[in-house]
Amino acid sequence: MSESLLDCYRNEADIIKRYFPEVPVTTNFMGTFKLLDYFKWGKYLDVISWNNYPTNKDQTSNIAMRHDLMRGLKGGKSFVLMEQTPNQQNWQPYNALKRPGMMRLLSYQTISHGGDAILFFQWRQPRGACEKFHAAMIPHAGHENTRISRELIKLGEELIKLGDKIIDSHIISRAAIIFDWPNWWAMEYSSGPSIDLEYADQIAKYYKAFYDLNIAVDMISPYDDLLKYDVVVAPVFYMVEEGTVKNIEKFIYSGGTFITTFFSGVVDENDLVILGGYPGAFRKILGLWVEETDALYPDASNKIIMKDKFAELKKEYDCRLICDVMHTEGAKTIAVFGKDYYKGYPAVTENIYGKGKAVYIATEPEDAFVKGLVSHYCNEKRIYPILKPREGLEVTQRVKNDKAFTFLINYNSKKVNVKLPEGKFKSLLDGKIVSDKLIVPSKEVYILENL
Amino acid sequence: MSESLLDCYRNEADIIKRYFPEVPVTTNFMGTFKLLDYFKWGKYLDVISWNNYPTNKDQTSNIAMRHDLMRGLKGGKSFVLMEQTPNQQNWQPYNALKRPGMMRLLSYQTISHGGDAILFFQWRQPRGACEKFHAAMIPHAGHENTRISRELIKLGEELIKLGDKIIDSHIISRAAIIFDWPNWWAMEYSSGPSIDLEYADQIAKYYKAFYDLNIAVDMISPYDDLLKYDVVVAPVFYMVEEGTVKNIEKFIYSGGTFITTFFSGVVDENDLVILGGYPGAFRKILGLWVEETDALYPDASNKIIMKDKFAELKKEYDCRLICDVMHTEGAKTIAVFGKDYYKGYPAVTENIYGKGKAVYIATEPEDAFVKGLVSHYCNEKRIYPILKPREGLEVTQRVKNDKAFTFLINYNSKKVNVKLPEGKFKSLLDGKIVSDKLIVPSKEVYILENL
Amino acid sequence: MSESLLDCYRNEADIIKRYFPEVPVTTNFMGTFKLLDYFKWGKYLDVISWNNYPTNKDQTSNIAMRHDLMRGLKGGKSFVLMEQTPNQQNWQPYNALKRPGMMRLLSYQTISHGGDAILFFQWRQPRGACEKFHAAMIPHAGHENTRISRELIKLGEELIKLGDKIIDSHIISRAAIIFDWPNWWAMEYSSGPSIDLEYADQIAKYYKAFYDLNIAVDMISPYDDLLKYDVVVAPVFYMVEEGTVKNIEKFIYSGGTFITTFFSGVVDENDLVILGGYPGAFRKILGLWVEETDALYPDASNKIIMKDKFAELKKEYDCRLICDVMHTEGAKTIAVFGKDYYKGYPAVTENIYGKGKAVYIATEPEDAFVKGLVSHYCNEKRIYPILKPREGLEVTQRVKNDKAFTFLINYNSKKVNVKLPEGKFKSLLDGKIVSDKLIVPSKEVYILENL
Repeated sequence: MSESLLDCYRNEADIIKRYFPEVPVTTNFMGTFKLLDYFKWGKYLDVISWNNYPTNKDQTSNIAMRHDLMRGLKGGKSFVLMEQTPNQQNWQPYNALKRPGMMRLLSYQTISHGGDAILFFQWRQPRGACEKFHAAMIPHAGHENTRISRELIKLGEELIKLGDKIIDSHIISRAAIIFDWPNWWAMEYSSGPSIDLEYADQIAKYYKAFYDLNIAVDMISPYDDLLKYDVVVAPVFYMVEEGTVKNIEKFIYSGGTFITTFFSGVVDENDLVILGGYPGAFRKILGLWVEETDALYPDASNKIIMKDKFAELKKEYDCRLICDVMHTEGAKTIAVFGKDYYKGYPAVTENIYGKGKAVYIATEPEDAFVKGLVSHYCNEKRIYPILKPREGLEVTQRVKNDKAFTFLINYNSKKVNVKLPEGKFKSLLDGKIVSDKLIVPSKEVYILENL
Repeated sequence: MSESLLDCYRNEADIIKRYFPEVPVTTNFMGTFKLLDYFKWGKYLDVISWNNYPTNKDQTSNIAMRHDLMRGLKGGKSFVLMEQTPNQQNWQPYNALKRPGMMRLLSYQTISHGGDAILFFQWRQPRGACEKFHAAMIPHAGHENTRISRELIKLGEELIKLGDKIIDSHIISRAAIIFDWPNWWAMEYSSGPSIDLEYADQIAKYYKAFYDLNIAVDMISPYDDLLKYDVVVAPVFYMVEEGTVKNIEKFIYSGGTFITTFFSGVVDENDLVILGGYPGAFRKILGLWVEETDALYPDASNKIIMKDKFAELKKEYDCRLICDVMHTEGAKTIAVFGKDYYKGYPAVTENIYGKGKAVYIATEPEDAFVKGLVSHYCNEKRIYPILKPREGLEVTQRVKNDKAFTFLINYNSKKVNVKLPEGKFKSLLDGKIVSDKLIVPSKEVYILENL
Repeated sequence: MSESLLDCYRNEADIIKRYFPEVPVTTNFMGTFKLLDYFKWGKYLDVISWNNYPTNKDQTSNIAMRHDLMRGLKGGKSFVLMEQTPNQQNWQPYNALKRPGMMRLLSYQTISHGGDAILFFQWRQPRGACEKFHAAMIPHAGHENTRISRELIKLGEELIKLGDKIIDSHIISRAAIIFDWPNWWAMEYSSGPSIDLEYADQIAKYYKAFYDLNIAVDMISPYDDLLKYDVVVAPVFYMVEEGTVKNIEKFIYSGGTFITTFFSGVVDENDLVILGGYPGAFRKILGLWVEETDALYPDASNKIIMKDKFAELKKEYDCRLICDVMHTEGAKTIAVFGKDYYKGYPAVTENIYGKGKAVYIATEPEDAFVKGLVSHYCNEKRIYPILKPREGLEVTQRVKNDKAFTFLINYNSKKVNVKLPEGKFKSLLDGKIVSDKLIVPSKEVYILENL
């Protein structure tokens, strides 16, 4: 279906190109949309564009992940936000209003993750049909004396002031997460081990760790160049092609840190199991053998007990969903399970391979564990947060020539005090020069240019 | 579909009328049944008849509402109860038995709301097929030595004794609730603002207020004569025709009190939004502008804080589902919201229009608030309870010439002491003369004729 | 459908028989599988075979019941377990691993209930297709150095040691439960009284009582010879043929104890209600009349209050789902309901009929009540436990000539101390001679041959 629709898109794009070869062609993507392999599509679009329709319950880390995924479709190039709504949607079960200031914050979040243009759906709210109660820039009231209009006007004025300063800047990541649509399909359309195992959720869990740490991470395809990175994470990377495995081996061998999880390396590109013991394709680089894979009932959990002492982690964490029963074959056991007949069996392992290492997480840990582990392996590679992490404060950076633009977005309902790095910064939205300390008010954003 | 089935009904009715012009023709309606516009159908029936199949979990106010709606289909004329069951049904998930005495109470409830005949489904319980476990007057046992038979016989004897005393009497209401099928369809088939917004539930909430207050209320169509009433309530009156709006304006202008809610006056008869600001058609008479409409998640709520002091209301109430963010344009703010960014914004308003007033409730309040508010605006118009309200005691009145028949139905599992108005009354079921005080035993009914 | 598929099976079996008349023909059944009347099918199979795929949440009594049902299809003849899995399945929602030792315990449970052969699905785990993650004897790892292989090898060695000692032995039951597919279909495809009334659940509740008491019980069809038994239980035996009723009458009249429940004897073989009062066909033998049948909402319950003093029962129990409102007509009231308008009405009755008695349970009692009641009526007939019951210890017996083989299976996570009957026993799996007392370790099985 993905291929067939892509053919259709290309056919239409070709007609446009024949008559208007200078006009850029795109179509609006939808983030983590399962049915289309956007990495395949990406190369046939002149510029990536997409629709960002989070609900009020969406975590900001999930929205950020979708931006980074869209940016990743053309190797990090800036994208266009084709659609977002200035206020409520009308096709959700509960169409809550966008809270004051959120439209502006989400717009700057878009820019901070590589968006160079922001468009809105819809211009004028229609009188009839199925989206008549979807918010618009010009509402049914017909005038601009509304909360939303004021927020839109403020945003517009700020963007004019920013000019093209940030346009075409890029994001520097030394870490990457592999996201792969064929893997998504193969894994979820396979029967077993658990109906609660969802690919996008697993990816989001690891993405959130980087997000919460203020560490930039690229969302990449398995065919992207891994050697650009120091840390590569590939959660539930179930279906792997031979070339992909070789690339990963080369990446680790030459010094990279590779982190993967249960249900990885299991089948080849034809969904045929790689025989000889799980995790098939990755067994050698991980230095372990997974004998059995247990699926936990939804009300069950196990424990991760640290054997190694990591500064970033405490002694014990919860885990759920899947527990591999496994044996190390050269790998070092970092942590073990705390319960059940596989109590004391490895839960997390690390294996030296060439100059690099390969880490295996045999279960779904709670977020705090993933954050600590990612922090540990980033620290090892001297990948540090842009700023010290603060709950609810998103910190990202775009770079252009010798200029760095640091975004601080405070989603909290209270202010956050931030300690800045050495040097002076120009706060682009209010024009002030800041240094040393900064107070970010609730629902406020700062863009700091280093001077 | 409603129109098409009506054509079918009329075609069949015409054939009967051609050969037996003196025979009354009807078909059995089903109360608040969404698919057919019974107000349109009503005019083609010689007498309204309907099927009353409440579950044991149905509130008695809901059953009463359906009776009143059916009575309203021909402008208040008596109706026939074509079907009720003497005992359990068999097509509900849990077919609980009708509790002792309930069949009799519900029969008198039918009469008290305008029923002039009561029929039962089914006469003899069938040996086979899909309703063989549905109760009947003659059960599979085949004799009448059963609880249900005894209850039926008692009811029959009482009805013979009552004779035609109450037949053709009518109900006098100075308040009305507008119920409109096209509005129901248009509102629920529109996308947004909340999947939990159901028309019949909203109507039932306001009906319950009158019911709990022992105040008679007519269920009317928007095309009925409003000038007969002092108070007219039209909850979520989303879709309105121009003529309807003019009628409402005239009603208010000439002194009536009109009460409506969020999501009213929004679209015209073609489901096209009335531009210029919500609540479109009612904006002028309500004296306000709704800027935004928030849909609350099911686990969320807000507060209604009274600004005005109403004797019938306390300081604070819960509300849910929908909260309009609005601005008064001449209306007086009766109550405000207590939480969220629209804390302090109007939640309930009142607007003087001509000699009358128009009240707007911007959210779904808890029942106690609606009851207090309805009580307040009824009191203002000197509409008072037939008797002082007592929990679980339904009090209604039918009138014929100079005689009033007051029904007291006690659904409680304990007796209720009632203070009667001045004068003497004949208790029709036991023949006694009563005055001053009356004890209504549990599950008992009294019909008092004023002497 | 059942008949049509049976025709198809017979057509195929006939072809095989024509060319290989000596080859036994079977097909793999699936236990309590609603769609096929296995009693009808059974006579066309040379040997019964079936697939046993319990989940980890299945009660061991339910698994035992399915074995006994399969054994009952050919009047108690040994059966073949055509499929079980050595470890996890892959088509359940949560494919938990079979816990250590459980495959062995469930294998011996199979034997203890009449299995003479055990086969596994699947031999070699396939690389592809929809069951590639279903466990196999030879896993994807391709070698036998696995927990499961070790368990399989141990089981194989033990079975070789046992040889044909137990083969063709049989189980002696003096009690039976009637299980009837047409009854299942008729009851569940009828509308009413409650969507929560499921035939197999009701059967399982009564089976569990015998299971927990260590009393053997046959699962039989209504056409089997009842006179072999002292106690026959037929829960929710809704649809009955005339011949069946006569057989049951003869059974009771000649001294048997018959136990049945609400919703029994209601319709004939054409699903037509037997008129004159419930429970129609059984009214005379039960000596009672059910006037009404109440269906309880899921959150509701009633009480069973004992009027008679039974040594095996305490004063009061919970009940749910269905409550008959009934009158004795000769029967003795054993227990009454404790709540609602039928408080004090009979809940459990006993009626003398000829030399036997017929017991009626008008509701769904909690398990403890059913266990006590079954115990009482078994004791009355001098049917006693094989061994004194211990929680989580299954005790069953197969008999061959003058030899009895007693199986003790400990599903608990701790050991159980057992008091043996008089005499000496050979423990067949370890070859030891035991007497007086025995300690059964956790997850262990003993097969004791009487010496």
